[in-house]
Amino acid sequence: MTNERMRSVLWTNGGLQLIDQRKLPMELVLMRCNTVDDVTHAITDMAVRGAPAIGAAGAFGLALGAKNFQATESSTREEFLKALEQAKATIDAARPTAVNLTWATDRVVKELRVKVQGQASVADLVTYTLTIAQALAEEDVAINKRLSQFGAELVSAGSNILHHCNTGALATVDVGTAIGVIYECHAQGKNVHVWVDETRPRLQGARLSAWELMREGVPMHLIADNAAGYLMLAGKVDVVLFGADRVAANGDVVNKIGTYKRGCDRQGEQRASVRGVRIAPEGCPVFNPAFDITPNRYLTGIITEEGVCYPPFKQSLAKVVAAAEKRRAEM
Amino acid sequence: MTNERMRSVLWTNGGLQLIDQRKLPMELVLMRCNTVDDVTHAITDMAVRGAPAIGAAGAFGLALGAKNFQATESSTREEFLKALEQAKATIDAARPTAVNLTWATDRVVKELRVKVQGQASVADLVTYTLTIAQALAEEDVAINKRLSQFGAELVSAGSNILHHCNTGALATVDVGTAIGVIYECHAQGKNVHVWVDETRPRLQGARLSAWELMREGVPMHLIADNAAGYLMLAGKVDVVLFGADRVAANGDVVNKIGTYKRGCDRQGEQRASVRGVRIAPEGCPVFNPAFDITPNRYLTGIITEEGVCYPPFKQSLAKVVAAAEKRRAEM
Repeated sequence: MTNERMRSVLWTNGGLQLIDQRKLPMELVLMRCNTVDDVTHAITDMAVRGAPAIGAAGAFGLALGAKNFQATESSTREEFLKALEQAKATIDAARPTAVNLTWATDRVVKELRVKVQGQASVADLVTYTLTIAQALAEEDVAINKRLSQFGAELVSAGSNILHHCNTGALATVDVGTAIGVIYECHAQGKNVHVWVDETRPRLQGARLSAWELMREGVPMHLIADNAAGYLMLAGKVDVVLFGADRVAANGDVVNKIGTYKRGCDRQGEQRASVRGVRIAPEGCPVFNPAFDITPNRYLTGIITEEGVCYPPFKQSLAKVVAAAEKRRAEM
Repeated sequence: MTNERMRSVLWTNGGLQLIDQRKLPMELVLMRCNTVDDVTHAITDMAVRGAPAIGAAGAFGLALGAKNFQATESSTREEFLKALEQAKATIDAARPTAVNLTWATDRVVKELRVKVQGQASVADLVTYTLTIAQALAEEDVAINKRLSQFGAELVSAGSNILHHCNTGALATVDVGTAIGVIYECHAQGKNVHVWVDETRPRLQGARLSAWELMREGVPMHLIADNAAGYLMLAGKVDVVLFGADRVAANGDVVNKIGTYKRGCDRQGEQRASVRGVRIAPEGCPVFNPAFDITPNRYLTGIITEEGVCYPPFKQSLAKVVAAAEKRRAEM
């Protein structure tokens, strides 16, 4: 590691600090969120992106909502809970397609509801909200570390790894998922090399993954997405690692457009520019789907924090889901 | 057609006029070449691109070489020929990988060599050089028209056509090849719609094909190359049309990176910018192969000016090559 890694989502000095991902790779700008609205805007404007990072930001957003709750002598726990539920609605609306966001805010509010039944004061609840958010963020880091270790076992020394989009420390609280596996291989001295898809149309690979990997000193080359097929058939790709926005029960994986072929109906922005520079004629109609679905038959395995799932995925995924639920219940 | 189409390679007012394709789609700039060096630089700097357009530009470059030949009373036909052979060497070196370029300049010099054996004066040879170049350019237009008509027969009314790179009037002298087929469908009222791959890394689709198609009023949407698979599997692509830098005797097709999967060893520029704007971290290593090879098994047919070839391509291609040679011999 050439520089100490900075968390992309970090509670510090009584507020939320984010790495402003819109400014990368040109400059590393830290952004401070002091209110629910600050967090909501950071999500809407994509200053923070990546499913797990958005989830953690949402949870910390509720901690800010709690901190800013104007408690009077007569404030009740129910009033506090109602204020937090309103904050949750605001934050969730910032990115309705991000399952991690509602998953995280649901979890915070659910735990608060339990606490509200007890004897805690409003001041206790404020503190407790931050505690839940912090636990959720730490859990994300721990999950990524476990997942990365399982994944690294699958990668032989000297492998060329193809990677799509951004799944690193920037997309999560820290470490990352597919890039977490790459970091783990690198840390183990496996001497891996990464082909980094630039990932049009939003260039998350060129802007974010390239930046992260270079910062950590992982050998890599940036490629146009078009070059991936050439490299695979030339025998220059040993492993393909990518993240998952969602995994279906049968193992089909929803992820960034270009991951594979089968489409779903979510749609991204209709625009034709690169970092604000127009690349097509004025008025040119553009169609930019945001996600596609990779059918399970193209996957060797699905790496999770409970181990690697192999086909048939329906069975192997059900097993890890049960294991994860058990782990959570025991926590 | 909303505007009268302008030839990308045109001899006019005693010199060569090119559309400067580096300036598109922001502005339509005409570029004048008055010397062999002007043409050489236009090819090197990619002001002119597209295999047939480069070939015609090279031939007109020789016409400029002839025009600028400093004939004295004692100049011999052999001295003239030698000067033209030198000009050919200069022009050919501008793009050693462009087969059309050496093919075109070979043809001009070969026809001049025949003429040099006869009684023509040096002044006659100068005029004759331009005549050959003009015939070659007109032949390109005629070929494209025939090819486009054959191709249009294959496209049903209302088709959604996927297109990669640029193969239109800009890539040729006029009309185009794959886009020529699209223009012909449009002219026949077939009500086609085009998905235009932006074609990273050089964006020929976004910059050039989108510009051409919009100018001609052909319904289209620009897509990131990553979205093509999504569209195909969603049933929104009826026909895929693309050009060919080279066709092997077995029907394998060399074309712009991203056309398909299998690679060849030609390499393009190593850079990571979009229209001069950096999209990756400073110093980021980039690998940009320029071409790939699409294996013949993925092709339905190969559209030529002598008709459409179907598998087995070895036989059907041999037939059209013989037909083309016969046509040329009769000219």
